[in-house]
This record gives sequence, C-alpha cells and structure tokens, in this order.
Amino acid sequence: MANEKIPYKIYLEEKEMPQSWYNVRADMKKKPAPLLNPGTGKPMTAAELEQVFCKELVAQELNETDRLIPIPEEIRNFYRMYRPSPLVRAYCLEEKLQTPAKIYYKFEGNNTSGSHKLNSAIAQAYYAKKQGLKGVTTETGAGQWGTALSMACSYFGLDCKVYMVKVSYEQKPFRREVMRTYGASVTPSPSTETEVGKRILEQFPGTTGSLGCAISEAVEAAVTHEGYRYVLGSVLSQVLLHQSVIGLETKAALDKYGIKPDIIIGCAGGGSNLGGLISPFMGEKLRGEADYRFIAVEPASCPSLTRGKYLYDFCDTGKVCPLAKMYTLGSGFIPAPNHAGGLRYHGMSSILSELYDQGLMEARSVKQTDVFEAAEAFARVEGILPAPESAHAIRAAIDEALKCKETGEEKTIVFGLTGTGYFDMYAYEKFHDGKMTDYIPTDEELAASIAKVPQL
Amino acid sequence: MANEKIPYKIYLEEKEMPQSWYNVRADMKKKPAPLLNPGTGKPMTAAELEQVFCKELVAQELNETDRLIPIPEEIRNFYRMYRPSPLVRAYCLEEKLQTPAKIYYKFEGNNTSGSHKLNSAIAQAYYAKKQGLKGVTTETGAGQWGTALSMACSYFGLDCKVYMVKVSYEQKPFRREVMRTYGASVTPSPSTETEVGKRILEQFPGTTGSLGCAISEAVEAAVTHEGYRYVLGSVLSQVLLHQSVIGLETKAALDKYGIKPDIIIGCAGGGSNLGGLISPFMGEKLRGEADYRFIAVEPASCPSLTRGKYLYDFCDTGKVCPLAKMYTLGSGFIPAPNHAGGLRYHGMSSILSELYDQGLMEARSVKQTDVFEAAEAFARVEGILPAPESAHAIRAAIDEALKCKETGEEKTIVFGLTGTGYFDMYAYEKFHDGKMTDYIPTDEELAASIAKVPQL
Repeated sequence: MANEKIPYKIYLEEKEMPQSWYNVRADMKKKPAPLLNPGTGKPMTAAELEQVFCKELVAQELNETDRLIPIPEEIRNFYRMYRPSPLVRAYCLEEKLQTPAKIYYKFEGNNTSGSHKLNSAIAQAYYAKKQGLKGVTTETGAGQWGTALSMACSYFGLDCKVYMVKVSYEQKPFRREVMRTYGASVTPSPSTETEVGKRILEQFPGTTGSLGCAISEAVEAAVTHEGYRYVLGSVLSQVLLHQSVIGLETKAALDKYGIKPDIIIGCAGGGSNLGGLISPFMGEKLRGEADYRFIAVEPASCPSLTRGKYLYDFCDTGKVCPLAKMYTLGSGFIPAPNHAGGLRYHGMSSILSELYDQGLMEARSVKQTDVFEAAEAFARVEGILPAPESAHAIRAAIDEALKCKETGEEKTIVFGLTGTGYFDMYAYEKFHDGKMTDYIPTDEELAASIAKVPQL
Repeated sequence: MANEKIPYKIYLEEKEMPQSWYNVRADMKKKPAPLLNPGTGKPMTAAELEQVFCKELVAQELNETDRLIPIPEEIRNFYRMYRPSPLVRAYCLEEKLQTPAKIYYKFEGNNTSGSHKLNSAIAQAYYAKKQGLKGVTTETGAGQWGTALSMACSYFGLDCKVYMVKVSYEQKPFRREVMRTYGASVTPSPSTETEVGKRILEQFPGTTGSLGCAISEAVEAAVTHEGYRYVLGSVLSQVLLHQSVIGLETKAALDKYGIKPDIIIGCAGGGSNLGGLISPFMGEKLRGEADYRFIAVEPASCPSLTRGKYLYDFCDTGKVCPLAKMYTLGSGFIPAPNHAGGLRYHGMSSILSELYDQGLMEARSVKQTDVFEAAEAFARVEGILPAPESAHAIRAAIDEALKCKETGEEKTIVFGLTGTGYFDMYAYEKFHDGKMTDYIPTDEELAASIAKVPQL
C-alpha cells in the first residue's frame, strides 16, 4: 500500500528543526492594520501595550520588518521535547476515499496539551520569565491553550491564572484537572472575580460565556495584579509568528522529498494554527516564487471570514482590549451553545484578515455534523482521534480529495491536524447518539451583532 | 542543557523498524509451564485452544522454539502509522532530580489508544481477519486494551465486543465513547449478558468487577457466538511476543548511540508491556552476552509477584479459561475499588513468572499516592501526562535515580512509559484534592484468596 519513496511519517532530525521563526508580515507589501487605542483612535504604542503584554512580545507584535526572528535556545530545548512533529502521509484515508489526491497532515497533537498551542505558550512563558514576572493570566476556550500555558508556566516556574469559557468548563471538567496537574488556577468565565465579569453577568445572567468575555477578565486580572501580564493564545501577530514553526517544519519535510503542495488547509478560529501552517508558503507566494491555494475552514456557527465584515473592532466582549482591524462578527457575538469545541472567536487574526482581503487566501464554513462525520471517518482509518477543531480541516481536505476523484487530478493536499479529541468525547457521544444539531446564525442576527461594532 | 550527542528523542527510521518479533522463550533453557486443561490436568492442545483463540495465535502461543517470528506486511504497514515510538532522554527530569543517572523512557502513548496495547491488538485483529472470522470479544480494565482493539478491528472491518470492568466503565465514561467512535460495543462487567456474569452478580451483587471476571464473560461470548474468537491484551505469551516490538526498537535506538542500560524498569499488571520491553535484553542475559537489572513494578494493592504464590491457577474469575502457572493472588482476588487505573490482574504472565522465579528479574510494589506524586512531578518537567499504570515505572525510575544521587553512580536507567493519562483525570482530581487513599491487602486476606487456588 505504501509508496516506497514517501514514508508514512516524515520526521525531521533535531538538527533540521527551525532556528528562527518566520515573520510573514516582512513579505507583505500592504501590512496588516495596526492595533488602535480605543480612547485616542491612534495606533497603540509599545509603552501602552507593555501595560498588558510582556515587553519582548510587544516588540514582536510590532515587528513588521524582520523576516526571521531567532528562537531562543531555551525555547528550542523545550521544542525538542515534543517537536519536530510528524508530517503524515494519509495513505489509509486516500485508499478509503479512492482518490488520486495525495494527502498529508501535519500532526500537532503529540504533546500533553494535545494541540499546537504549546508552540506559542512556551515562547510567551519564556519571555514572561525573562522579564522577571511572577505570573501570567489568560483565557481558554476548548482548553487546549490553557493546558498548553499551564505546562509552559510549570516548566519555567511561573504562576498561571486561567479564565475558562463557562460552557467548556462544564463540558470538559477533566481539562481543569490537567491544568491543575501543572499547577494552574482555573476560573469559569464570566466570573465574579473581576469587574468586567460581574458586569457581563448582570447583563446576561444565563450566559455560557465566550472567548471574548474570558479575554476581558484575564486582561483585567493582569493589569490589577502586580507582576502579572496577560498572554493570548491566538489572533495576535506574535502568536502567528511562534506558530510559524509548524509551517517551517512542514515545508522542510516536504522539501526533503521534493513534494510541492497544491492546496494547504487549516481550521480557523483566531487563526493561530492556520497562520502558522501557511506562513512560509504564503511568503513564497507573496515573493512570487511559488503559487498555492490556501483554504481557511471555519464553523458555520461562527463564520467570521465568510460572513463577517472587515472592520476595526474590539478583541474582547468587555472592550478593555485595543481595537484590531479584522473580519469580525462583532465583539458581542457569542456562538450557539450547541457548538462543540473551540473556534468560537468572533474575529480573526489581523494578518489573515488582510491576506484574505487581498484575495490571497480562500475561506469556507462547514456544519458541525459534517465535521464530526469527517472526524469519525478519519479516526477509523488513520487511527488518530481528532479534536473537533482539527476536524474542520479534515472535512475540507476530504471534500477536496473527493473533487480530485471526480476530476482525476492528482493534487497534493496538506492540512493541519492541530490536536486530539480526548477531551471532546461528550460531543462525540452526542454525535453517536444522533443528538448533535447544527446552528447557523441568520443574516439578521449577524447584521445586528455587526451593527454594534464601533464606528471609527 | 542537552548533551550534544544524544538527542532528546531518538527516532528510528522506518527502515530500521523490526521486521520480526522476538520470542524470548526460544532462549529460555527452562521454559514457562504449559497451559493446562482444567478437566484433564493435561497440557492444552492446539485443537482445544482453537475453540477459544484464533488459529495462528494459538500457533504463536505454543511456539517455544522459533527465536524470530516475521511480522506480516499488513501489520508492519499499520505499525508505521504510529511507530517507531520515540525513546526519550529525560534531560529535564534528570535536572530536576539533580542525579548523575541517565534516564531514558520509551514512550508508547503517541497513538489514539494512548498506550502500547495497539501493538498486539493490530496483530490479533489481523489474524482473526485472515481466519475469516466475523469478530472478536475481549475484556478491558482501564480501557486502553479495549480502545486499541476497537481501533484495530475498525481498520480490518471486524466486529468488536468489549466487556469493560464496571469500576472503569463508571469512572471513565469517555473511554466508552472512544470505543464507539471506532464502532465497538461496550458492556459493563459483570453483566447479565452471559451465564458467568449472572452467576458472579448473584454471588457478589455489589461487585465493581475485575479483569478476571470480564475475561470469563468475553470468553463465554466468543464460544457461544458463531464466527467469533476471544482475544486477550496481556498475560499470554503471544501478547508478549507482539509487544517485543517495544524492546526491539528500544534496543535499536540505544545501540545507535552505543548506550548500554544498567537498569530496565516497567510496570506490571499482566506483564505485556514489561515483557515486551525487556525481551531482547533478557535474551542477551539468557545467552550470557550481557547483564542487566530488570525491575517489575506493581501496585501495592495488587501485588502478584511480590506477595503472590507461583502456582497453577485459573486466568479468570469464572474459571472458564485454562490453568496457567503464574505468580497469583488467587483468581478470586479483586483489588480494592480505591485503586485507580489498570494493573488490576490477579496473576502474571507465565513467561515473566518463570523468569522471576529463576531470579533473572526483580519486583517491587509501590503505593498509589507515591505513584501519583511521581506522575505529577514527571508531567511538570517532561510535559507528558502519564497514565497511572505507567507512573508505577516512573516512581521506580525516580527512586533508582535518587539512589544514584546518593552514591554518585552514573547509571543508565530505561523505563517504559506505556501511555497517557487523559482518561484518568478523575483519579488525578482525587490526588489533587488530597482524597486519594492507599490500600494494602493484609497477609490474611491474601492467604485466604490464595488458599482457594485449585490443588493439582
């Protein structure tokens, strides 16, 4: 069954691992729009950002010119504990689909956080430690980011306060215990621990929470505690920078065997995985050296790229964060509670938003029942139990491979398998029992939410 | 921090993967005692065993002479989906312990079953398929074996009926959903689906079940359904044969860097992981080519090697299986319900029992609170969240490394990290909340249980 030349898994050797992250903004002629101070309407300065974020991370956030940013040795040492991650040739999936397409996936689930989030968590914890901080605060949705950050903080001896979206906190009680194993404190959001949490609870007493709301609480906790800063697992340009390690490894592995992908697919919530995976390939496209199709896959219940507007909006529900220009559904948008897993963010990374706006990337939305169908089919042939988030990319990869079957084209498809679904069995159970439903917001709902975006 | 020569993870290339399993019995001068027919008291014949087990697996069970048994290509193809598994140098753990010891672990958790069990599951499913069977039945304790078998059956299109020890079924509801994702049916044991289950429920109405009891039910289900056979995830010699892939890869990885271990450590329930890990090293010891210390680590609540007797006993509670000579606590022994995770079996692999009896291997038992302490310490520095079973080996490895710290010896310690603890967060939660207790059976309890072993 296996092609003799391409192994099932392409592993890089440690010496082939990236020494630097790749900053795609350096190759963008039109740069992403800057973060704005909501009070003044002017671009946020480094000094302003450093009230909330670690100093070195602010420098990375604002760096639009350096193409390569060296990865500090301490971070590379940690990466070696779980990286390089395998690039897998999906021979069994190809056979099941009877497709002439060649399918590869970059699997980021081989670490305890169960996802790619650790790539940025360890970097952010490192810079926090280097700055002499006591600890960091953050939000988590499905729980991967919180787990990753608690692992990273435990490694560097930092305190870690996590605000977890209430619906996930309740559906995934074991996630909390993983974070506690690594010494983190976990609070369901919205909570009464913060002023913004109290305000949101007064306005929406029955709310199941949202990432935007948890972000507000974590930011407030950071600025009101001495020696703390806030860290974020997606959306920000610094996060995409750290996640470029995924794309760099993928490219190195493909280059080793002379493989040139036609289509590169990733799920998209805030954009960290997709941005990281496509960055070095997008760089080639921006420099005119190669062409690729990029597909962002988002849930039909939270369709920021496909149905949102490209506007300046708040990054958080409580409006304590800077304004970012991005495809947004409005910072007050909260996806339906029947939506499983992550990808619940109302907006999208400024970098990806700008690339999408320039027509350099495609986007599509998929229904969650179709996503779980793809997840189960994938698990049965490829063995790995995917996270619902990752399964959005699987869905699109299968759909593209089936198109190839119709046309007879031998396209090479690469997708990001961002993580494992061990903590998503509640959603899988609903799917098995035929109790999973889909929810697609109406045009009116989205229009009403987007209408609340501030006018600049 | 990292030694320049030894990488964090030693991965073999696919072409370096074992082509054959290693059968340690071929190198044993005194062979393990044969399975006996409880009716006649005579060794079980192939024809008798084939009523319960697949034909080719019976041949492997009875094969004491062939040192190498080729791994069929179909199985090697499946192995390539998740193997070779990494041999990891525990640099961070060494640093935390401040020990001169060099610690390595072979990590078998990088697949969806979350453990080494898949190595034998795929082999057994393959031979069942080759024989033209409809399906297989089995038992599962902590759930790793059932998950592994359901993945393997899904791959080959076989039906899979799993009897799951009731206490695990209740403590690990999500395990059931993983198995269902792969299309298996899962029944809590003891159940009213079998005669033996009904009998056990009548005798012990409140029982939380045991592996021995679930085995009885699975065997009955196999022999009463046309086109089904029973498969077992541990204890049997065929399972140790398949699991030798762990030891063979470990040895190949160590040899690549000229590393000779001093101590090899594994947790021991039925013996599959330990037997597989140590086999090729034990072969060298048996042939007089090298010397190693081997340490079997078992829970203090189920101490078959350290406190059991070397006798012929039933493999199952319901006494429907053949008799095996093994270190046993009596087939009626059921560990205390406060014991977390697997390693709940009353006996021990005949091969390992015989090697232990010959003084070729050591054994020790550890308390579960000490085990979870080691598990958490390991997770915080090495990142991986270990299964409670695997953490027995971590405990012993840490203890040996601390001895090296006292003596200043630079010993090389290798241990098997058999799997991940994602489905064990209930036990971790108890540990975090200080609610975990230890239970050590009294001498009287064990004597009473062992007294019920049949006299031959």
